[in-house]
Amino acid sequence: MFKKRTVALIVLLAMLLSSVLTLTLTDQLSFAGSGPLRSGVFADIGSGSSKSDIQKIEKAIQLIKKNYLEDVDQSKLVDGAIDGMMNALGDPFSSYMGPDTAQQFSEQIEGSFTGIGAEVSMENGSVVVVSPIKGSPAEKAGIQPKDILLSVNGISFEGLSLNEAVSKIRGPKGTEAKVKVKRADTSAELEYTIVRDDIALETVYARMEEGNVGVIEITEFSLNTAERFKKELADLEAKGMKGLVIDVRNNPGGVLSIVIDMAQQFVPKGKGIVQVEDRNKQRSQTLSKGSGKGYPIAVVTNKGSASASEILAGALQESAGAKLIGEATYGKGTVQTSFSEEMGDGSLLKVTIAKWLTPNGEWIHKKGIQPDIKVSQPSYFTVAPINKETTFKYDMLGDDIKSAQVMLSSLGFAPGREDGYFDKGTENALKKFQTSVNMKATGVLEVETIKALESSLIEKIRDVKNDKQMNTAIEEIRKEIASPVSNK
Amino acid sequence: MFKKRTVALIVLLAMLLSSVLTLTLTDQLSFAGSGPLRSGVFADIGSGSSKSDIQKIEKAIQLIKKNYLEDVDQSKLVDGAIDGMMNALGDPFSSYMGPDTAQQFSEQIEGSFTGIGAEVSMENGSVVVVSPIKGSPAEKAGIQPKDILLSVNGISFEGLSLNEAVSKIRGPKGTEAKVKVKRADTSAELEYTIVRDDIALETVYARMEEGNVGVIEITEFSLNTAERFKKELADLEAKGMKGLVIDVRNNPGGVLSIVIDMAQQFVPKGKGIVQVEDRNKQRSQTLSKGSGKGYPIAVVTNKGSASASEILAGALQESAGAKLIGEATYGKGTVQTSFSEEMGDGSLLKVTIAKWLTPNGEWIHKKGIQPDIKVSQPSYFTVAPINKETTFKYDMLGDDIKSAQVMLSSLGFAPGREDGYFDKGTENALKKFQTSVNMKATGVLEVETIKALESSLIEKIRDVKNDKQMNTAIEEIRKEIASPVSNK
Repeated sequence: MFKKRTVALIVLLAMLLSSVLTLTLTDQLSFAGSGPLRSGVFADIGSGSSKSDIQKIEKAIQLIKKNYLEDVDQSKLVDGAIDGMMNALGDPFSSYMGPDTAQQFSEQIEGSFTGIGAEVSMENGSVVVVSPIKGSPAEKAGIQPKDILLSVNGISFEGLSLNEAVSKIRGPKGTEAKVKVKRADTSAELEYTIVRDDIALETVYARMEEGNVGVIEITEFSLNTAERFKKELADLEAKGMKGLVIDVRNNPGGVLSIVIDMAQQFVPKGKGIVQVEDRNKQRSQTLSKGSGKGYPIAVVTNKGSASASEILAGALQESAGAKLIGEATYGKGTVQTSFSEEMGDGSLLKVTIAKWLTPNGEWIHKKGIQPDIKVSQPSYFTVAPINKETTFKYDMLGDDIKSAQVMLSSLGFAPGREDGYFDKGTENALKKFQTSVNMKATGVLEVETIKALESSLIEKIRDVKNDKQMNTAIEEIRKEIASPVSNK
Repeated sequence: MFKKRTVALIVLLAMLLSSVLTLTLTDQLSFAGSGPLRSGVFADIGSGSSKSDIQKIEKAIQLIKKNYLEDVDQSKLVDGAIDGMMNALGDPFSSYMGPDTAQQFSEQIEGSFTGIGAEVSMENGSVVVVSPIKGSPAEKAGIQPKDILLSVNGISFEGLSLNEAVSKIRGPKGTEAKVKVKRADTSAELEYTIVRDDIALETVYARMEEGNVGVIEITEFSLNTAERFKKELADLEAKGMKGLVIDVRNNPGGVLSIVIDMAQQFVPKGKGIVQVEDRNKQRSQTLSKGSGKGYPIAVVTNKGSASASEILAGALQESAGAKLIGEATYGKGTVQTSFSEEMGDGSLLKVTIAKWLTPNGEWIHKKGIQPDIKVSQPSYFTVAPINKETTFKYDMLGDDIKSAQVMLSSLGFAPGREDGYFDKGTENALKKFQTSVNMKATGVLEVETIKALESSLIEKIRDVKNDKQMNTAIEEIRKEIASPVSNK
């Protein structure tokens, strides 16, 4: 999505896609952590062919260390080895994380982290604040959107990646981060001393739309998400909500028990929420202990709705009569558990241990769940930014011009074609756009026009009235409220 | 390069780029294979922190095997682990090969393999003979170019990759391969019984050009290459050669001792050929024991000239007064050795153990060697093929049209632009081309026109008079022969 590519919430940084797309079985953690594994006895490794396999690895380590041109850090070799084994499984959802990544993964699961609480992005090589998180130490200290962060505790961010910079900013609760800041409109450098604290990650956003249609957006299924969700749901119900839209677009998943707890609110007692099939093909069903709701429900999904999002969508579609609206979901039908205690050094092994199936026994892996009402966002939602180093004009061609044509078209200045050829129609459309934003109508696409075009587009994308998927869902719920016969 | 992408000599198949780009120190093999390594005692692995590192790997193997959703083949995990360790080195030239790849690697180094001796490619899902190797069992049996190979010893090639098919065709010397063949112009299936034999890979091609200019092309530095080279060189000299062009374009390298032996022919006694710097920063020089030549020499290089090719180019440039002509070389300045005995199961570890430097002490790694006379091939040598599923016409745009424009231009039908926009100029050029090959002048680019365009281009590329780099080198040598003052 436009712009999103450079924006990342601090806690989500350094996460690989496979880490984000997780479905963690916390119940399983204790199970997996107990038993013979804990005792450190590896019976079947110590015997027979397994032993010679280990010796082959040892031999390779030895040969590398003894002969490689450079000195080799053995722990890097070991990390590489475990990484390589996880790759060999051919399962993108099984992965190895070193201590740092493991820590961030745990924080993501827990829905909180310790730091200063600023959402940052990398812009032209600078670490720029997107916005301080509400109520965070960063906000209280006075950090403002667009502030450029220069250094922390004397460590300059120059040449660092966003991840590296973020790892310097973060630290244990109670410690100080002395942050040097350059503010857009001043040339002086400012310094803030910020005491790091627990930052709760908001994963639930609720609002009431016209006609008493409640909307709850869930960005992730962290450990505190069910509780937050229930509170927001109760608030909406207390305000007289007559129908509900749940938005799980771009929600990569989270904890299995949490999504079950949430689905429980809507699935009538005794009906299925999810089935789990273990490595021995044993299936177990989870049935609802809840009681269902009298009002209509819709779930908005897209291809970024994965894992726990798909369990919720599947359960509500099959067992609670909810309508799915939007795009087919991601299609991740497996459950992982993580082993960290066993690794003993802060690192973590995330391993796929089971499949999950919808209440009706459908395995949606690599297929996704189809919506009841298919709605795509307009094409300008995903248009690529335009290269600002080049000037484009009549008779040129390329992907940048294609982007510009899509943007012009979305803003109502139809160029007549969107294939990347800069024809007279494109030139005329561009002139009209330039006039509309009080620029000289040159018909040439240079850096200032590109910036104007992109910010007009961003404004349009951010305007909720252009969110076609959400609007379709709200409209559908309004219809169902009006003709209650369609309720279950 | 055009067409080359689908053509591969049997023995080169399944080679990773990093394997091909090798510089093997055979002298080192015995050194590296002797000593404490062989005894199987891994002293520094068995003690202290190293031990816990190994235990961490064991623990990961255990956790994966016990918990992963599917049954896990432990040898795959071990291969993955060693692969992962090699990746962790961050050196593309250090790599791990399983038994099959290791076998092919050894054959490449040795310059021979056992098989039927047919060069094959994959075309539209079929295994097609490019040509049988001269004197090979395949040629003697009657296998012809364009024959489609269907099966060997009853194993169908349907659905197999080229590598998989080739591994079925090959086998030990003396064994039989019953090959089912479909010949282009017959519908019947033919069956040949071919006895596998040693197939020597030709790595040296020599010819005499006008004006007594000898040309020797070296495709690789295998164990038999120096001997073959010396024979061809002696033949050319016997025929009265007055100057020599050595062509190492797209030559990925080979064995260090071989290229030293070859450089020795041209570098006067006592002058440097190459320097090697080991992991302890100890440098050793290799000086020539040869006597130099009285005639002018040029070496033709391109960015595919790597490793041993660069040693030859560097030695001849700095110590034998040769001119380098063409493009800058690849830039691989390291030496690998391979450990296979130590691995014990046919697998092989290729490890970077040293740097090499030119006689003057230049490390050309990631830089390459600059030519004395820079000559690029015409752009049509590297043009991408055109998608044959689509029909292109006026006012369309894209990379396929760009390719067509480059092709038209190279064939003398200048379209006026080569940026991928199908304008009237392109349409007219296309019509002229169609007329020239007796096709209807539609000005539309459909499959038949695309095929005609591509085969005209291939003909042009194959025509030696369009090899600008080689022709410049031959011309240069002719000049030097004519004005002997420029000889050393």
